[in-house]
Amino acid sequence: MRIVERVQPTRPELTADPVIRHARAPVSAAVRARFPALADPSVVYLDSAATTQKPDTVIAAVTDYHREHTANAGRGTYGWATTLSARIAGVRARAAGFLGAEHADEIVFTGGATAALGAIAHSWGLAVLEDGDEILYNPADHAANVLPWHQLRDTLARFGRRIVLRPYRSSATGEADIDDILARVGPRTRLITTAHLHHVYGGLTTLEELHGRIDPAILLCFDCSQSGGHLPVDVRGLRADFAVFAGHKMFGAPGTGLLYCHRRVHDRLRPFLPGGGSGVRITEAGLVGTGMPELLEGGTHNIPGILSLEPAFELLDELGRAAVAEHNRILTLALVEGLRTVRGVDFLPGPAHATCAVGYGIVSFTLDGISAADLGFVLADAGFLVRTGAHCMPSAEAGHGSVRVSTQLYNTLDEIDRFVSCVAGFAPH
Amino acid sequence: MRIVERVQPTRPELTADPVIRHARAPVSAAVRARFPALADPSVVYLDSAATTQKPDTVIAAVTDYHREHTANAGRGTYGWATTLSARIAGVRARAAGFLGAEHADEIVFTGGATAALGAIAHSWGLAVLEDGDEILYNPADHAANVLPWHQLRDTLARFGRRIVLRPYRSSATGEADIDDILARVGPRTRLITTAHLHHVYGGLTTLEELHGRIDPAILLCFDCSQSGGHLPVDVRGLRADFAVFAGHKMFGAPGTGLLYCHRRVHDRLRPFLPGGGSGVRITEAGLVGTGMPELLEGGTHNIPGILSLEPAFELLDELGRAAVAEHNRILTLALVEGLRTVRGVDFLPGPAHATCAVGYGIVSFTLDGISAADLGFVLADAGFLVRTGAHCMPSAEAGHGSVRVSTQLYNTLDEIDRFVSCVAGFAPH
Repeated sequence: MRIVERVQPTRPELTADPVIRHARAPVSAAVRARFPALADPSVVYLDSAATTQKPDTVIAAVTDYHREHTANAGRGTYGWATTLSARIAGVRARAAGFLGAEHADEIVFTGGATAALGAIAHSWGLAVLEDGDEILYNPADHAANVLPWHQLRDTLARFGRRIVLRPYRSSATGEADIDDILARVGPRTRLITTAHLHHVYGGLTTLEELHGRIDPAILLCFDCSQSGGHLPVDVRGLRADFAVFAGHKMFGAPGTGLLYCHRRVHDRLRPFLPGGGSGVRITEAGLVGTGMPELLEGGTHNIPGILSLEPAFELLDELGRAAVAEHNRILTLALVEGLRTVRGVDFLPGPAHATCAVGYGIVSFTLDGISAADLGFVLADAGFLVRTGAHCMPSAEAGHGSVRVSTQLYNTLDEIDRFVSCVAGFAPH
Repeated sequence: MRIVERVQPTRPELTADPVIRHARAPVSAAVRARFPALADPSVVYLDSAATTQKPDTVIAAVTDYHREHTANAGRGTYGWATTLSARIAGVRARAAGFLGAEHADEIVFTGGATAALGAIAHSWGLAVLEDGDEILYNPADHAANVLPWHQLRDTLARFGRRIVLRPYRSSATGEADIDDILARVGPRTRLITTAHLHHVYGGLTTLEELHGRIDPAILLCFDCSQSGGHLPVDVRGLRADFAVFAGHKMFGAPGTGLLYCHRRVHDRLRPFLPGGGSGVRITEAGLVGTGMPELLEGGTHNIPGILSLEPAFELLDELGRAAVAEHNRILTLALVEGLRTVRGVDFLPGPAHATCAVGYGIVSFTLDGISAADLGFVLADAGFLVRTGAHCMPSAEAGHGSVRVSTQLYNTLDEIDRFVSCVAGFAPH
């Protein structure tokens, strides 16, 4: 039970209860003042699932690096460089604690969540998968959690290894369909990968129903790009072997991802994008790994990006991720409740279809009589910044042509109300 | 003839000519004021080969993104996002022009130079190399241009494809030994890879002596990590098929690299780290590429990193890369001339061993009686920030335990003089 909402009693009546509209969202509006890009109240940013705005402390960390501490890390022996190396080690240790990892060497810095998932495909998949092995995946997940597995299959096929990608379904509530997963798990299943929080549907998948019911040798991989900044994610609670996070979706700077690799898989990994500072040495028998996390890290880090994670974690710790989750839950429920009253609104899978009052800051819908793209344009004209289109879903049609609204701790119930009113103005008569 | 020094008459007498010490380095000292990290004159930064300091305009571009324009690019339909997409396209076009590429679709944004070289190994090497194919490389190059080829060989070997990595030598002047390369080129040679400017020796390799003398089907790959911020690099003049650049070594922010892929190789490339926004679609037959450069770009870009390249290029264009090269040449010659007078100094391969007055901002040496590490510490105590150690050379012993001095446009002849005096103070009696 790692999500605070899950331990509360389900209150299906709440979704229809006007109290939600007037509930106090727990994150104080004063916090918003720390986000300079949100100074103009006429702009309502509802695209935090694409990227979050940056608080003053994150901006300062990046700016300070460029102004005062520019050096490479893990390289020089002078103070500018050694201080940076120590700070990066500190961020790694803090990230481990923040995400529930037991050891700092389970945390790898990557160029982003996409690179992190690619790292798993290359470092683990290419190294260990054999003819006939199977990966279970959700074709409605984000491209970053679909395409790497297809590419892995293509690469292995070139060399005569045929692995099987078994697609499983999403439920009406936008979660992975556990029964469907269980029906597809077999003796050759090596990995089950899922979005922790779905980027379009906003459904949460913990796979906890699988615990004890599948071969424990099957690895579990979570794309936590959306949950990382919204929920108290605990990789050990999830029993994750791999988990990936996008720094820029958790208030950090773009260009930095986090890859969690449980120690139990370390001896199965090959190097990823090796370069300066990589944990490898050249031997007659090929490259030999000398340790994690360096095995998967080569070259100069995105140093300011990594340093930006520290104040990003600090912000989330200061407010409390449970409070942030509750804030987004209240906004999500108010959004669903509001949009439900608009004629012609049709919800994609997600919390709108749930029988309990869940919500994680993501709601997608269509409106009769107007394309999602056109609706996006007129909403933008009115100051509401939302995402429209297929939302990086490479194979599923479900996401095509929908409007996605995504909230974060800086959004207010007043913004949700104004958004709903604006959408209502474009509804069919 | 793409390097301005090359077209000048060689003047071997210059290295001993005191005029160099008193020559006016062409970049005005006023430019230095644009680098806030260099405000303290007691600190002498001589580690620009590790990373360059950042000018005010680069810092502002990154800070402005975080403060005012935070959005994802290539995703949303609202102004914040579409403006960013247009700006990134603008940087790509400018990068193409800056580097001499004919087409903007030949420029790929990566997470760094290491990732760019890894992209070549994965996207090209894994896709096309067959049993018995050969790659010529310099084992004394930076790890980023050595390890990816070893990893590629390991990966292919797992699937029964045995490629051959043929090492070639460096010359005493720190360049690739062209005769040695020619002796090793054979009918199965597929790629020759080299540092354009060597990161420890400071020797320049253009491979121009190979033009017309080897099978034109053999691809040429240049690691321009060191030359990108120092010299007027022209990828077409180099006849490069691949060339990589590190944004943070050319005054931009860390976490962004540039990968040049000549159009003639585009149809031989497979996707690299695919994700949202990748130029691929899923078909029954596997992933099919839909276009460059997206084929090699997936997921959210390091947007501030990319935006920082624009003012970085602007700075270099404003000063003129030929003038920057001349500035570094004068500093390098003064450094060599000065260190030559210090008893016990032994130069690694490089311009110090050249018979003409070349120099590209990088000089490495050892000093009798004191380890490079110890010398680095005492130099740092005295305010001189240099790099010591093995300098990311994974297999060569030559770089082990040396001091590397690297200059850039903000360094002055006075700093070089002070540095030489300081080293002399630690020389054996």
